Amino acid sequence: MEIWQQLVETVREGDSAALERLLKEVSEGDLIHALARLPADERGNIIAAMRPEQAASVLELLPDSQAVEAIQELSPEAAAPILEELQSDQRADLVAQIDRAEAEAILAESAPETAESVRRLLEYPPDSAGGRMLTEYVAVPSSWTVRRLIEHLRQNVDRYADFGVQYVYALGDQDELVGVLPLRDLLLARESQSVAALMIRDPISVEAGTQLEELFELFDRYSFLAIPVVDRARRLVGVLLREDVDEARVDVALADELKSRGIVGGEELRTMPLLHRARRRLSWLSLNILLNVVAASVIAAYQDTLAAVIALAVFLPIISDMSGCSGNQAVAVSLREMALGVVKPKELLRVWGQELTVGCLNGFVLGCLIGVVAWAWQGNPALGAVVGVALALNTMVAVSIGGTVPLALKRFGFDPALASGPILTTVTDMCGFLLVLGLAASTLARLAG
Amino acid sequence: MEIWQQLVETVREGDSAALERLLKEVSEGDLIHALARLPADERGNIIAAMRPEQAASVLELLPDSQAVEAIQELSPEAAAPILEELQSDQRADLVAQIDRAEAEAILAESAPETAESVRRLLEYPPDSAGGRMLTEYVAVPSSWTVRRLIEHLRQNVDRYADFGVQYVYALGDQDELVGVLPLRDLLLARESQSVAALMIRDPISVEAGTQLEELFELFDRYSFLAIPVVDRARRLVGVLLREDVDEARVDVALADELKSRGIVGGEELRTMPLLHRARRRLSWLSLNILLNVVAASVIAAYQDTLAAVIALAVFLPIISDMSGCSGNQAVAVSLREMALGVVKPKELLRVWGQELTVGCLNGFVLGCLIGVVAWAWQGNPALGAVVGVALALNTMVAVSIGGTVPLALKRFGFDPALASGPILTTVTDMCGFLLVLGLAASTLARLAG
Repeated sequence: MEIWQQLVETVREGDSAALERLLKEVSEGDLIHALARLPADERGNIIAAMRPEQAASVLELLPDSQAVEAIQELSPEAAAPILEELQSDQRADLVAQIDRAEAEAILAESAPETAESVRRLLEYPPDSAGGRMLTEYVAVPSSWTVRRLIEHLRQNVDRYADFGVQYVYALGDQDELVGVLPLRDLLLARESQSVAALMIRDPISVEAGTQLEELFELFDRYSFLAIPVVDRARRLVGVLLREDVDEARVDVALADELKSRGIVGGEELRTMPLLHRARRRLSWLSLNILLNVVAASVIAAYQDTLAAVIALAVFLPIISDMSGCSGNQAVAVSLREMALGVVKPKELLRVWGQELTVGCLNGFVLGCLIGVVAWAWQGNPALGAVVGVALALNTMVAVSIGGTVPLALKRFGFDPALASGPILTTVTDMCGFLLVLGLAASTLARLAG
Repeated sequence: MEIWQQLVETVREGDSAALERLLKEVSEGDLIHALARLPADERGNIIAAMRPEQAASVLELLPDSQAVEAIQELSPEAAAPILEELQSDQRADLVAQIDRAEAEAILAESAPETAESVRRLLEYPPDSAGGRMLTEYVAVPSSWTVRRLIEHLRQNVDRYADFGVQYVYALGDQDELVGVLPLRDLLLARESQSVAALMIRDPISVEAGTQLEELFELFDRYSFLAIPVVDRARRLVGVLLREDVDEARVDVALADELKSRGIVGGEELRTMPLLHRARRRLSWLSLNILLNVVAASVIAAYQDTLAAVIALAVFLPIISDMSGCSGNQAVAVSLREMALGVVKPKELLRVWGQELTVGCLNGFVLGCLIGVVAWAWQGNPALGAVVGVALALNTMVAVSIGGTVPLALKRFGFDPALASGPILTTVTDMCGFLLVLGLAASTLARLAG
């Protein structure tokens, strides 16, 4: 029996000891795999049967959308203790995706400080420092002595145990952030020293509204494990961990990869409802079919030429596809260079120049290749010349568009990972068809001969 | 004057005070941008004129290939103190990419323990725990008392300052790893306790040869900031930081994105030599042109049909491009589901079923769309039917190939991010052309009428 079947049966029988045993036996990977393939209600039932800590650790590993679904399958009374076990940022993340009414019902069942933390985090946009920060941190008045601080840590050891504390934050009279004390310095300090004497003053901090890109740069520049997050009055409101910023970086890279293959508007899992999946994919496809029809209208305008030299029809899809390939390489390099900071969006001309040289060279090689194929196949050197010259020129067009369009999109605030592809394909298709058929029309006498 | 010009001039004039002032003025982003766009020798000159710490912090931020170039521009005597300032893993990473002879010359100029650390790290493949670990860690005999340990930390505070220590590792008699002591626990301990009494026994560790994918899972499962790396005799050889594993994750995601757009075999920067760039891109393009010619040969076989119904030529590139779009969406979802662990490579049939349903639905919609366009344009319902049915059926083919090929490639040890695209395009092009032209040939009487 497969693991998902065992899970479903054990939960149906209501045998919690057997479930406990089963959960101990299966690896985490197998458990996620089994849960992920079940329908939402079965997944909800299994999670409801687990202990809250178990359920929380499973929710952390499930894809976001499935974790949200699972919580919505639970009663608010069952969901609240599970959410309690999550870290504040993950908890807020999930609650943000639950229906408003249901979220309120769950928060009503939660500990007041948990509910308060969720509400506080939800005030910030998800891609800001506030949206990614934790509210679990240790902050004490800077007037305390080291002795008092260590005493405080000892007394709250249970509460702080899950915090992963690496720094203690020092606050002034108005609760404003005045210093940071790395745990290591605290370890080597004398007990009679004051926090104020020991702390690093005016520490690097970010405002809660700071955007992801700026945070990436900040964590590149400094090697801190965490950076404190403050409001406009410099009051400490949270802590942003390096690992959460790194996770955001992975998310952005993965979302870009999905977008470059046409999965737009968030990730798709095959357990999502059919209509939802089909509709989301269709929105991208219907835009593309429209652009395709526009591009192909160029061919329609040259039907007479095509009728005279029917062999040209073989080369149209090749020109279209190869130009797309060349252009996409240029898109990739531009996206990467922008991410690395070695090129700025306004440097269109420089990038264009650098692409044109590669485009000339590669266009020449590809043009010769396809030209020879065409010539050899039809025994017509003029056909080879038309097709070869068209591909050579269109390769230059493709790398020019591919290299510069991402920069232009970025400059004007559009998403280059998303929009570069369709723009590139449409323009290079139109140009390519125009080149092949235009050249063919003007040399028709020789071609048809 | 632009920043890169200012840098070049200041260094040419040999005015080190002016260089120091300039470096203080410019932001890190502007500095990287300026350096990255200079030719390798100028970049080398500027880095040679910096203080070693400054140069090291710049090398950390430059793209890898440029950092390597810059080091190769320096004399071994100038390069050694800069490498000394880097973290052990970054240092070994760069040295690994330098010419053998030059690397040896630099190591000969380095402190013996630095050279030893580099040689040790280079023994491990770059995508293993050993290749990503640091050799900077604090390890003490488990028999020590807390008092002695803290004394030791105090005495070595300068040496350990850059380590970013969060854990102290406890060793047994044979230098084998016996425990881990989080700094926080140490802070709250009594001075007379022994390390052995305080430490977490039998800590999670990894062998140096462990591969990246396993490391990703491990760091997902546990929330540790670092995991100790041991050899086969369980002797401690290094420490693997969460942030370095996260960085590897970003690298993998970015490399996949580059590959999906046809930049293969490592990243490209436009400052690289023209021939190098052109050749690398061409290797991908020439494979694709070959596959394209193979696919287009289907069209060649149906020239008579095309000649009879020339309007079909307009729809061939549309069918090709749209099938590619649909198929790529399925590729994206499969890659993502495998990365999330919610689908396993052997579940071809399940994925195929889930794709076919979406393919039917989307194929129907897209087929209707393009069919109506064809009908309306030529006033020929039979043409609309041929084109529409062909696109509908080929959409199903495309999602089937796109959904299952990445799983099959993964199962047999190939790189799905790399190979899925060309396989998909070639098969769907051939099928698409065959469907349009085959259907057209068999209904030629009606079409031509």
